[in-house]
Amino acid sequence: MSPSWIRLVSSLKRLPGVGPRMAERLALFVLRSSDGEELAQAVLDARQKLSRCETCGVFTEGTACRRCQDDSRDPGVICVIEEVGDLDAIERSGSFRGRYHILGGVLSPLDGIGPGQLRIDSLLKRVKASASNGRSVKEIIVATNPTVEGEATASYLARLLRPFEVRVTRLGYGMPSGASLEYADELTVTRALEGRQELAAE
Amino acid sequence: MSPSWIRLVSSLKRLPGVGPRMAERLALFVLRSSDGEELAQAVLDARQKLSRCETCGVFTEGTACRRCQDDSRDPGVICVIEEVGDLDAIERSGSFRGRYHILGGVLSPLDGIGPGQLRIDSLLKRVKASASNGRSVKEIIVATNPTVEGEATASYLARLLRPFEVRVTRLGYGMPSGASLEYADELTVTRALEGRQELAAE
Repeated sequence: MSPSWIRLVSSLKRLPGVGPRMAERLALFVLRSSDGEELAQAVLDARQKLSRCETCGVFTEGTACRRCQDDSRDPGVICVIEEVGDLDAIERSGSFRGRYHILGGVLSPLDGIGPGQLRIDSLLKRVKASASNGRSVKEIIVATNPTVEGEATASYLARLLRPFEVRVTRLGYGMPSGASLEYADELTVTRALEGRQELAAE
Repeated sequence: MSPSWIRLVSSLKRLPGVGPRMAERLALFVLRSSDGEELAQAVLDARQKLSRCETCGVFTEGTACRRCQDDSRDPGVICVIEEVGDLDAIERSGSFRGRYHILGGVLSPLDGIGPGQLRIDSLLKRVKASASNGRSVKEIIVATNPTVEGEATASYLARLLRPFEVRVTRLGYGMPSGASLEYADELTVTRALEGRQELAAE
């Protein structure tokens, strides 16, 4: 096999959820179809133009996303989520009109993901800053997924947030344990938002 | 969502076997990891450097692939396959030392794939040319997959090749090695019975 083919297949194999067979199938596709050129350009374009919103962390063009500039959204409630798919799920439910904060993942020592790899510092700064600029954050809803790592991350955040005068809540038990927020239906997400409970620091 | 994000996700969604959820997951990956840049470059590099070998149709750098230039391979036997993955499978078996011809798919009228979309003309030209240059093709093994489309394509090729003095064969049917009769599907068992062979007493 030629070097360009090997490079292409091994690049595709690094994508999450793509095994050796699928990598070869995708390689053929991007070679045979003009969609291959468009895909490469879309990746380069997105990597050049998109960066995380300085406030909430969603990928956006520019330094501030649409939602963080939307004054109709309550700046007093911040919903902390793992990634943008979770944001989409909550927005689809139509039950939340506050702000978001994307962690970029969850604590997972086995994968080498500690607090430094997540957007936790920026969350604390946000809460601190809100106190001084008079748009005080009153509640932080920790909406990490109900998995072992998601729960551990929630507890960790609750401990960090204890010094601040802010209510820390967790999504309600509308969510079946072990499930992923990204795939939940709208009603389940709505119930989970309504049934949110105090998250006590241990 | 910003235009660059939408463009990226919709490009990824066009990949075979990638649905909307996986497209978002892949989009996040290519944005967050430096592998995203490498992937885009690998696609562009491969699209620029790789093209189908003029003879057999495998993707290669240059106009002729390594195997078509390998004089130790018998030019008298051509194995016709759907795509390069099939070639790899046959090479792994170590049981074939002839040449290959990649169709680039199978006849599938419902998907708009007719003879014009496959590398059938180039196969006929190859057989014709071989007669005049003295390296006559003696046998064509049609190794399309044993699916409805693969069988139809094989029959079609057999009809087209009838005018030539060439033996046209099909891969043997039967039980896959190591399989259990108990769990084999009916068609496989039927084909295995039809293809039964004399068992010589040793």
